[in-house]
Amino acid sequence: MELKAILGCLQRMKRAGAPALLLFVIVVAPLAGAAWAQNANDCHPSPTNMPNAGYPRVCSDYRVMFKLEAPEAHQVLLQPNQGATGNGLGKGHFDMVKGPDGIWSVTIGPVVPGFHYYNFVVDGVPVNDPGSDAFTVSLGLDTTRGLLHATSGLEVPEKGVDFYLPKDVPHGVVQELWYRAKTTGEFRRVFVYTPPGYDKSLTTRYPVLYLQHGGSQDETGWVREGHVSSIMDNLLADKKIVPMLVVMERGYGTMAQTSAQQTVPYKQDLYTAFDVKSQDLFAQILIKDLIPMIDARYRTIPNRENRAIAGLSRGGAQAMHIGLSNLDSFSFIGSFSGPPVAFNYDNGILTHADLLNSKLKLLWIGDGTAEPMYNDILKFHQALEKNGVKHSYYEVPGTAHEWASWRRHLYDFAPRLFAMSKK
Amino acid sequence: MELKAILGCLQRMKRAGAPALLLFVIVVAPLAGAAWAQNANDCHPSPTNMPNAGYPRVCSDYRVMFKLEAPEAHQVLLQPNQGATGNGLGKGHFDMVKGPDGIWSVTIGPVVPGFHYYNFVVDGVPVNDPGSDAFTVSLGLDTTRGLLHATSGLEVPEKGVDFYLPKDVPHGVVQELWYRAKTTGEFRRVFVYTPPGYDKSLTTRYPVLYLQHGGSQDETGWVREGHVSSIMDNLLADKKIVPMLVVMERGYGTMAQTSAQQTVPYKQDLYTAFDVKSQDLFAQILIKDLIPMIDARYRTIPNRENRAIAGLSRGGAQAMHIGLSNLDSFSFIGSFSGPPVAFNYDNGILTHADLLNSKLKLLWIGDGTAEPMYNDILKFHQALEKNGVKHSYYEVPGTAHEWASWRRHLYDFAPRLFAMSKK
Repeated sequence: MELKAILGCLQRMKRAGAPALLLFVIVVAPLAGAAWAQNANDCHPSPTNMPNAGYPRVCSDYRVMFKLEAPEAHQVLLQPNQGATGNGLGKGHFDMVKGPDGIWSVTIGPVVPGFHYYNFVVDGVPVNDPGSDAFTVSLGLDTTRGLLHATSGLEVPEKGVDFYLPKDVPHGVVQELWYRAKTTGEFRRVFVYTPPGYDKSLTTRYPVLYLQHGGSQDETGWVREGHVSSIMDNLLADKKIVPMLVVMERGYGTMAQTSAQQTVPYKQDLYTAFDVKSQDLFAQILIKDLIPMIDARYRTIPNRENRAIAGLSRGGAQAMHIGLSNLDSFSFIGSFSGPPVAFNYDNGILTHADLLNSKLKLLWIGDGTAEPMYNDILKFHQALEKNGVKHSYYEVPGTAHEWASWRRHLYDFAPRLFAMSKK
Repeated sequence: MELKAILGCLQRMKRAGAPALLLFVIVVAPLAGAAWAQNANDCHPSPTNMPNAGYPRVCSDYRVMFKLEAPEAHQVLLQPNQGATGNGLGKGHFDMVKGPDGIWSVTIGPVVPGFHYYNFVVDGVPVNDPGSDAFTVSLGLDTTRGLLHATSGLEVPEKGVDFYLPKDVPHGVVQELWYRAKTTGEFRRVFVYTPPGYDKSLTTRYPVLYLQHGGSQDETGWVREGHVSSIMDNLLADKKIVPMLVVMERGYGTMAQTSAQQTVPYKQDLYTAFDVKSQDLFAQILIKDLIPMIDARYRTIPNRENRAIAGLSRGGAQAMHIGLSNLDSFSFIGSFSGPPVAFNYDNGILTHADLLNSKLKLLWIGDGTAEPMYNDILKFHQALEKNGVKHSYYEVPGTAHEWASWRRHLYDFAPRLFAMSKK
């Protein structure tokens, strides 16, 4: 109800002689709390809701309404993801309030538009919202029930922003493929975006972008949360990029989903699988198994001039680490909100400007101004400048360590790839 | 420990003069309760666990150990999915027991091997197991928090059975593609399996199997739970099938995932979206939008002799309904555990033996002997026989209304397709 309409209503009711208490109940009380009822027409189920789930519901002013039916529960909280990602819903947690029907609810915001990971906490137990689809991220459980979890996600559509939504343009596909990596002997899953028209020729060959997820996500991240296929389809339709393949693999050396024979204890160190050994193993898999498999199976241009590597957060650090260690394999490197502390740059990047400037066609650094490591990344950019290392730096105003940043990073990064070597 | 081995052990210990209490502790007590400690080496995290999650854990005798850390909860239950699917873990629920460390646990079984949907119930709230990946199925919440849910799934590997596992054979891919259906105006997601070698020719054309999920699942079901790509890859490697495309769409007319503008109330009838209108709408989408799009985009053989439709459970009913209503579009129809009550067969199938026998190259009916509607499907098969309607009937011994049946149905059904028209 708009304020003008409320005031008009108030006037009419006063003229009709309504008692003061009724006026309070109808007009003032609804304005008082977080549960202020939005005009129902202004609030809609999120695109990430499961079919027909009425909640969570996103309002036009970016408030979000959550509900959970839990008549026997003693305490229910809304918990924005506490990992490295996902603080666009707010920090800490939000208390939910139980109604007489046993349904707990809370309305928060306005929140930052974009994609956010979250969960509820029912009597101390982190649980999924049954109204939302599940996405892979860590719940940050230090007593580990797994390193990653299938937890709830919420898309808050950005008004007037559609570069990552499907449009009536030619559509590429995302191919899911299983292959055996000799390095570990395991079958691994990889997603490959092929642009529209890929299957209409036997001779056209394509450059390849290897694109990594973040440090508590998996290979589904860029496909599901990132909307990689719509971003690339739309860029292609706008003639802003060269047609290319995008390869998205699971950035863990020892955590293929089919590796079920491990007998780890119930409680263990949360980040065992994120250790250096796992990272080195993944680098080996990427260079020795993945790239040769992709070059054999797809029509690629199999040389460094036509190969890029990028990633978000920990994947950005992987791109820097693997890319800079394999300059014979890559000539484009992108770090989307990658933590500079992981680059070990004092001993490497900053002291080899000549080498990097001659070998790399693009070194790309991006961040969002609202993310915790914004200052670190800005300083890294300044250090690169000071030391004469050519690079692109791109910051997204107001976005955090979330997909709202990384979708835009890809949208800025991809048009800078390969075009140079094509001309 | 086998009974024979236990008895042998008992004999040896008696001969060695072991005291009666020790004999009881070693031999009798372990047999007494569900919490009998397995040899740790015999129990392994399930393939459907999230990376490094130690539980749920499947033992070599098909017992399964579940754990949930919930120190503040008052009651925790293990709940096998109560929908149409998923009773291989048992009926009703299992009470979990709280340990001094706040971790609740229960060991159940031996369970039926295969894939099972389940969840925990914490103080009355159905929640996911953080140790397991999430899969789409209905939680059967009659106060609806959505019609489908992202809930926990558990793979219990079947000993000696590998027809649905990835092997060192040529691998096809599963392509994810978004297209706009004119019937509803929405973008819809479809998965298309293309066999190995599909992209090595511009002229080879393929027959197509349209394969539907069940009535509380979605288009991810055959890809994730069904392991369709490994089943087809392995059948092809064994030369048991003709190379074909498999198209898997979302079998709901009004529930495209991008349709986020609905403003349904929080509480509504659970099966609104499964009604006749939605089914009819999906039939229109399949015939008017999906098939023309697939025939335009992929190298198909676009005629009825090279087109099949099949599905599981409600998808089996869809296959019968859509297939029999569109004999100019399909000549192979498969119902995997489809409910005969949905076929309305008294007025149709049984009285048109001549038409069906002349038009259809295959009418395939399958079930599992342990599923609730086994007798209904058996009677339908007998009625078809009695009325002279040619068909194949295939029952899986001991399997329920679950993926252990449907994977085998596909494995039996696919080799009967198209080969006839190719020879």
